[in-house]
Formats: sequence, structure tokens, C-alpha cells
Amino acid sequence: MEIVRIERKSLEDFGISVFEKLGLSAEEAFDSSTILVSADARGIQSHGMARLWRYANGIKAGVMKTSTAPLVLRETPVSLVLDGQGSMGLSLSKNTMGQVIAKARNLGMGVASVRNSNHFGIAGYYAEMAARNDMIGIAMTNTAAMGVPTNGRDPMFGTNPIAVAIPASKGRIFCLDMATTCVTRGKIETYAREGASIPKGWAVNTEGHETSDAIKLIDDMLYLRGGGLLPLGGEGEQFSGYKGYGLAVLVDILCAVCSGGPFGKSVMDSEITSARVCHFFGAVRLDLFRDPEEFKNDLGKMLDELNATKPAQGKERVLYAGQKEHEKEIECDQKGVPLSRKVYEQLESIAQELGLSVPSVK
Amino acid sequence: MEIVRIERKSLEDFGISVFEKLGLSAEEAFDSSTILVSADARGIQSHGMARLWRYANGIKAGVMKTSTAPLVLRETPVSLVLDGQGSMGLSLSKNTMGQVIAKARNLGMGVASVRNSNHFGIAGYYAEMAARNDMIGIAMTNTAAMGVPTNGRDPMFGTNPIAVAIPASKGRIFCLDMATTCVTRGKIETYAREGASIPKGWAVNTEGHETSDAIKLIDDMLYLRGGGLLPLGGEGEQFSGYKGYGLAVLVDILCAVCSGGPFGKSVMDSEITSARVCHFFGAVRLDLFRDPEEFKNDLGKMLDELNATKPAQGKERVLYAGQKEHEKEIECDQKGVPLSRKVYEQLESIAQELGLSVPSVK
Repeated sequence: MEIVRIERKSLEDFGISVFEKLGLSAEEAFDSSTILVSADARGIQSHGMARLWRYANGIKAGVMKTSTAPLVLRETPVSLVLDGQGSMGLSLSKNTMGQVIAKARNLGMGVASVRNSNHFGIAGYYAEMAARNDMIGIAMTNTAAMGVPTNGRDPMFGTNPIAVAIPASKGRIFCLDMATTCVTRGKIETYAREGASIPKGWAVNTEGHETSDAIKLIDDMLYLRGGGLLPLGGEGEQFSGYKGYGLAVLVDILCAVCSGGPFGKSVMDSEITSARVCHFFGAVRLDLFRDPEEFKNDLGKMLDELNATKPAQGKERVLYAGQKEHEKEIECDQKGVPLSRKVYEQLESIAQELGLSVPSVK
Repeated sequence: MEIVRIERKSLEDFGISVFEKLGLSAEEAFDSSTILVSADARGIQSHGMARLWRYANGIKAGVMKTSTAPLVLRETPVSLVLDGQGSMGLSLSKNTMGQVIAKARNLGMGVASVRNSNHFGIAGYYAEMAARNDMIGIAMTNTAAMGVPTNGRDPMFGTNPIAVAIPASKGRIFCLDMATTCVTRGKIETYAREGASIPKGWAVNTEGHETSDAIKLIDDMLYLRGGGLLPLGGEGEQFSGYKGYGLAVLVDILCAVCSGGPFGKSVMDSEITSARVCHFFGAVRLDLFRDPEEFKNDLGKMLDELNATKPAQGKERVLYAGQKEHEKEIECDQKGVPLSRKVYEQLESIAQELGLSVPSVK
């Protein structure tokens, strides 16, 4: 796959121009672009500018609404429940996490559950907002149903990611940001495009048996014939797939049952309809537990010990959660943000339509 | 394996007598016995009366302390940090969760981190205490290091279970209670005793490669030569083992870094020393989000939908987290609590030493 690199600020500015041309407010455009680019900068290309055309379509179709204030359904000094009313998920989520952090600043903790939002990009972005404020940050979202429960055959939950970010010494952040299915649909699609077999343990077919046929699987999922992604831990009980299944349902409960939004197989998604996804955010101040500097020093020691442990034969090093992504981000600030040539061309076509131009390749 | 059944109340009373004879206060003895028996009743025999002899040894050796009040290290209206000072983990945990629930009743949420405790049995027990009070309950503990990080070869964290319990309609509780390693050491030991091979994907050897040799693995782990359990998701990145690894470290942070206790490979355990394990508890009131009855009805619908989904070919049914354990508990209340003949004989020998008698088999 051919990669081009673009200077980060230029790419962000381009995204801002696109979103403003599409009618977003200045703040929404800024949030949406910078959060998407942060995914590319961390090496999570699936959630970055590759999705710009989907947001553009959603805004043009009116299913991702601009300048729409969320409805407050319930609020206490430590909690917030919102109906997003189909507004831009990226900006809505950043604002909501900001409110959660403010609540935590006052009373030590804050949580929010949000219904009727749209795709919010990478969960880790919001969790890290709290971490940068000496808090433990939590972010989750449900997604369109594509995961199959243990011993089932039909999709009953989404890839439902969980992110938790916790700050450590030397500016480091432990950031676990994980789909609760074993892999995402995007990964299966890559195999399907290349005509390759997927490893058994990633997905089941319409009978509920492990499959290696990526092309048939994607087709069956698209036409709702059954089959889908396995939860983390794989099929049945041998490798504890019921744990990933339980985690996926837990995310669905916190995001959708807590906010009164759609859950399970009711969560549908298409290129032109609103995703109606639900999110959950949380923040807990470190100083509820200890002096934050002592806490971060101890966590730093833990991360150092993990980095210092002997690698398996043939492996180079042992990392902690989020380390690879942060290293990539530092690299991007120097070398530019990587995009595949195909995504770059998509951006060019979006730019042309709107009378804009894509920043040149570094 | 031969199973005997004992009437639940009689088994609990026996446990209480044993703990009282060993010097525990009436409350500690009651808590410790009933929590252990609840594990057997749910079919989690590894955490039930099979461990009574370990508690007895710990108390006799003075490493599990009776009538020892925990030291309050830090407290706010929503949080609590304790040093357990080596007291009985079961009773200490029940008391701590009680305080967390009281805090949540006042302000909506409560959390606690506890260091220098002892084994607390099943995490789900404490999470369900909150669920029975119309709250989301959370319980975690770190354990002796036996899990190997992704791309590593040496144990750097424990089996570090996470439990989350959430109440639903008709008295049901969604209760996810899962070790963050793929399987526990107990499961490997069972294979080792039978001379059987373990499936690849459960553990790695001293070089950090997947192993099927249960006997050598147990021996290498015992003599700290390296090798150990794989995190949920297995070896390397193909089945997302880094997610289980991240979850295990997350538990270690919330339990041990938050409380200033031992973490990672420093957590050692033996039959005669205190485990010095650390716990984390949390409770969040449902009515922060919605009317609790509406919440429980919606969650009930979700659980009904999961139960109603079509099973995989050859499978009988699809369950939700905790359902199997709760069905077993109902069965035990009628038929008695199952114990293996070997555990029953262990109880007889403990009874004899203390001048007590084990309740007769049903």
C-alpha cells in the first residue's frame, strides 16, 4: 500500500475547511477535523481521514446535524444523560467529555451516557482528555450490530470499543483502546479485498461455525443473512470467548441502556442514515486515591518494568497499552501524517467538489 | 469426579464454626463462610470451600489477621483508600463494598481501592451487592503474577479478575465475572494432574512460545523459571492478546497503583504468606441515568433478546453473563451445594483437627 505523508497542521486545516464548507460551525469543524487526524497520527487509519467522505455524506444527507444542541435528559452534580439528536458525534463527544471532566474537578468523579449520536472516531481520544487533567478517563461507544454472542450465529452487538486512559510520569499515558470483538469488520474487509482466508477464530458463518471465507462472510453480513465477528476470546468457551461477549454487552448497557437509546441488533448503520449510536464517558480524579505525582511515578515504574521485561524469543520488545500509538504520533509530528494513496485521492475528490485543495505531500 | 451435595445452610454453618474456632469474630466468620459457599453454589468450585484449608493455614500462621481494622489512607464523600493490614480479604471486601454503596447512596457514585488484603474469593459477589441496591457494581483484584504480557516470556501480572454486575427486571442480574487471562492456573493444574496436553493459546513456555505441556509449565511457574498464562486473546497480535494484557494491567493499576500497594511481579503468594493483594470496588446508582424500573425493564429486554437469538448449529442456547451461575445457585438451593469428594474429605480433616463435624451428605 503506497503511503503519502502530509504535514499535520495542514491536514487539520484542510479538514476544518471541508467541514466549514459543509455547514459545520467553526468549533464543530475544528473538533471533527483534529479528532479524525489524531487517529491517522496514531496509526489508526480506519478511524481517520479515510472516513471523511462518510461524514461529508452524512452532513449533506442531513443525518449528521450541525449546530444542534443535545437535549439534557437528566443531570446531577456527578452525572449527565444526553440525547445527541443526531448531531456530529466527534464534537458532541468532546464537549460531553469536557463536562464530565468539569464534574470530576468538582466532586472527584463524573459520568455521562449519550444517545442518538453519530460516529465519534477513536474512543481513546476522549479518555486521554481526562488523563491530561490528572484523571482516569473512560470512553465507550456501541456500534452497528456485527458481533455474534458465544454459541450464537447472528449479530447481537457491535464492535463496542472500551478506552481507558491513565497518566504516568514523563508525560506518558497508559491508554487501552480496544474493540471488544476479536477484530473489526474493516480487518475482514481487507482480507476479502485481497481474496485471502481469515484465521479461524475471527468470525462465524451463518450456521455459527468458525469460517475462513472472508468474501462470503462480508456478503452474508451485508445482506443480514447471519454470521459475524467473534468476541475477544473467539468461538465457544475454550479460549473464553464469553468474556469478550460479556464485555461487548457491558458496553452496550453503559452506552445505550443507561441513556435509553437503541441497543443490540437495533443499532443499524448505513452510508446515508444516522448511526444513532450511544456513548459512555467517565472521569475519576487521581487525587481521590493518592497524591497525583506519587501515583504517576508508581505507574511510570510499572510501565518501565513492563518495557524492561525479557521479550519472547524472536520478539523485539514488550510494550504497554497505547505506547505504539504515542510513538507513531511523535513520528508524525516530525515526518507528517501518513495516508494511503487511495485515501489521499478520496480527499482530492472531496476537495474538488467543494472548491478546495488538498495540502501537498511532504 | 465424584460429587456430594450438602444442604447450603448446614455448609455455611460449618464454615462459620471453623472460622470461629480459628479465632475470627462472629461477623468475619459469617462473611467468610457465606462468601466461600456462594462460590460453590454458583459452580465456581475453585473459589469455594476447596480453599478453606488455605484460609485455615493463613489464619493459623498469622498472615491472615482477625479483628484487624483497616487503616484509612484517604477518604472523600465519593471515595475511600484503605490499607487492609493483612486482615481477612472476604470480610474486609464485604465491608468495603458496603461503604462504597453507602457513598453511592449519598452522592450517586462511590469507589474504593484497598491494599494489603488477602484473597477475597469471587469478585462477582461484591459487584452483586451493589446490583441488589439498584446500582452498577464493580469489583476487581490483582493476584500473584502468573500472566505473561504480549510478546513477553515472564509473568508480569496476575489473573486479575474484573466483575461488573447490573440489575435487570424479574430479579435477574447481568454479572460478568472474568479473569483477564485466557484461563486460570487452576485449569492448567487440572490438565497437569491428568497428564493431558493443554490447547495452544492458553500459555507460553520459558522462551515465550505457545506450549501444550501442562506439567512442565506448572513446574516452570512454581520455580519462577518463566513461562505463564496468556492474556485473554492469546499469543501475539493475531487474536488480539494485547487487549487481555491491557485489561490485566488496568486492573493492576486500579487495585494497586491507586492504593499504593504491590503490583506486577512483586505480588507473590504462597500457602503460608499473606497474599498482600489489592482490590478495587465501585458502585454507581442507576437513577443517575434513568428511572431504575425503566432501566431494569430495558436491560431485561436486552437479556431476553440475547436468550432468544438462534443458537449456532449443534448448540442448545445463548446465555448472558452470569446466567449459568444463577441457574446453578437456584438448583443448589433445592438439591444442596455440590462439592467434590476430595474437597469433602479435606473438610472432614479440618473438622477433625478442630473437634467439629462436617454436615452429612444430602
